[in-house]
Amino acid sequence: MVIPEHTAKAFDVDLQELSRMVAEMGGLTEKQIADAVDALSRRNPEQARQIVEADLEIDALQREIEAKAVLTIARRQPMAVDLRELLSALRLCSDLERIGDLAKNIAKRVLVLDVELHSSRVIRGVQHMGTLVLAQLKQVLDSYAGRDLEKALAVWNGDEQIDAMCTSIFRELLTYMMEDPRNITPCIHLMFCAKNIERMGDHATNIAETVYYMIEGHSMPDLRPKGDTTTFGGLRPG
Amino acid sequence: MVIPEHTAKAFDVDLQELSRMVAEMGGLTEKQIADAVDALSRRNPEQARQIVEADLEIDALQREIEAKAVLTIARRQPMAVDLRELLSALRLCSDLERIGDLAKNIAKRVLVLDVELHSSRVIRGVQHMGTLVLAQLKQVLDSYAGRDLEKALAVWNGDEQIDAMCTSIFRELLTYMMEDPRNITPCIHLMFCAKNIERMGDHATNIAETVYYMIEGHSMPDLRPKGDTTTFGGLRPG
Repeated sequence: MVIPEHTAKAFDVDLQELSRMVAEMGGLTEKQIADAVDALSRRNPEQARQIVEADLEIDALQREIEAKAVLTIARRQPMAVDLRELLSALRLCSDLERIGDLAKNIAKRVLVLDVELHSSRVIRGVQHMGTLVLAQLKQVLDSYAGRDLEKALAVWNGDEQIDAMCTSIFRELLTYMMEDPRNITPCIHLMFCAKNIERMGDHATNIAETVYYMIEGHSMPDLRPKGDTTTFGGLRPG
Repeated sequence: MVIPEHTAKAFDVDLQELSRMVAEMGGLTEKQIADAVDALSRRNPEQARQIVEADLEIDALQREIEAKAVLTIARRQPMAVDLRELLSALRLCSDLERIGDLAKNIAKRVLVLDVELHSSRVIRGVQHMGTLVLAQLKQVLDSYAGRDLEKALAVWNGDEQIDAMCTSIFRELLTYMMEDPRNITPCIHLMFCAKNIERMGDHATNIAETVYYMIEGHSMPDLRPKGDTTTFGGLRPG
């Protein structure tokens, strides 16, 4: 089938516009992660409220990207490789939307964390997890924009470190909870926050798999490294 | 534009096949929820392992539905209402996949819950939440299959009850944790399990919104009832 030139051009314009929208959504999501971790570290309820608000923007953008991608598929009838590109945009914005939700969940906890946390060490640990996840997300969005398989694989392999850090934070929080019942409530909030960040890392890994699929034309063999033992060992200290 | 009859027929066949696949995925997901809650109640590691295994099947089915939906869009160039139908299938299978993940997460916790839980009351609470979520999922899948707006809205409104139950379970677990540090580890596992079930309810609500969109042609006005106070009050007992 020969595609008329104007169709091919229109398709390119659609793809470019979609890439722009995905990049915009990625940028907003990165900002939400950074802000959520910041709001948590400084226990800033005003910032937390802004994060909850801004999540609506990310959700709206996802809807726009979905609509645009599906309409492009219907109008331009792309073939194999281009179809993969559009499906990848759909998958990617779904993961970004979930990351945004997780950042919002952290912000909601900031709004109720009224108890003083004696341990700035744990907070630093959570901050460090946030920094790592943010770096992972930036890198995987770069790998998407640049069709860079190597970069995507680096993200895929880097998730282990975040999982390990989550496990170590869980252990530490558990110790504080055992020490003094007054620590239980704030520590549970922090556990959920750490778990949320760990889940963000999983979504960055999903995006890496999408980039792999987009470039290679088939799914990644399922060999995901699983350093996350929060479900397992993290709650068995000592 | 007049669509040739054979194209219209081929499109109907595609749509029917997609509906069948979504129904199959829905059935598998329902089974995973029921099994996960059952495995948790009876602390059955063998059953838990089967759930983790079976999740791969759900993931594979999602990939198939995605591929089929996107290919149908590209081949048949459907117009507005049909396009909505296909986009809805894509959204729906994304929510089902996440529900499956959440069931798998519960199963993983069953594998490490080696501590005796003194409170069968909490377990009954979690079981009850599971039953409610399962009913919600069944109903929303029915509303999808039957294009039943009223049923979808009932699911949407029913989520509040699950959230309230989650809050009440959190309160109870917190009390046990305060009472005896030995309860802390198992209670945290149960909190995460309850939270996973509560999240399943959110996904059922998402599906209800998708059904609304599919039938009405526009998004639901954002008026979601929010009975979930687990982020807020649930961790402030007394």
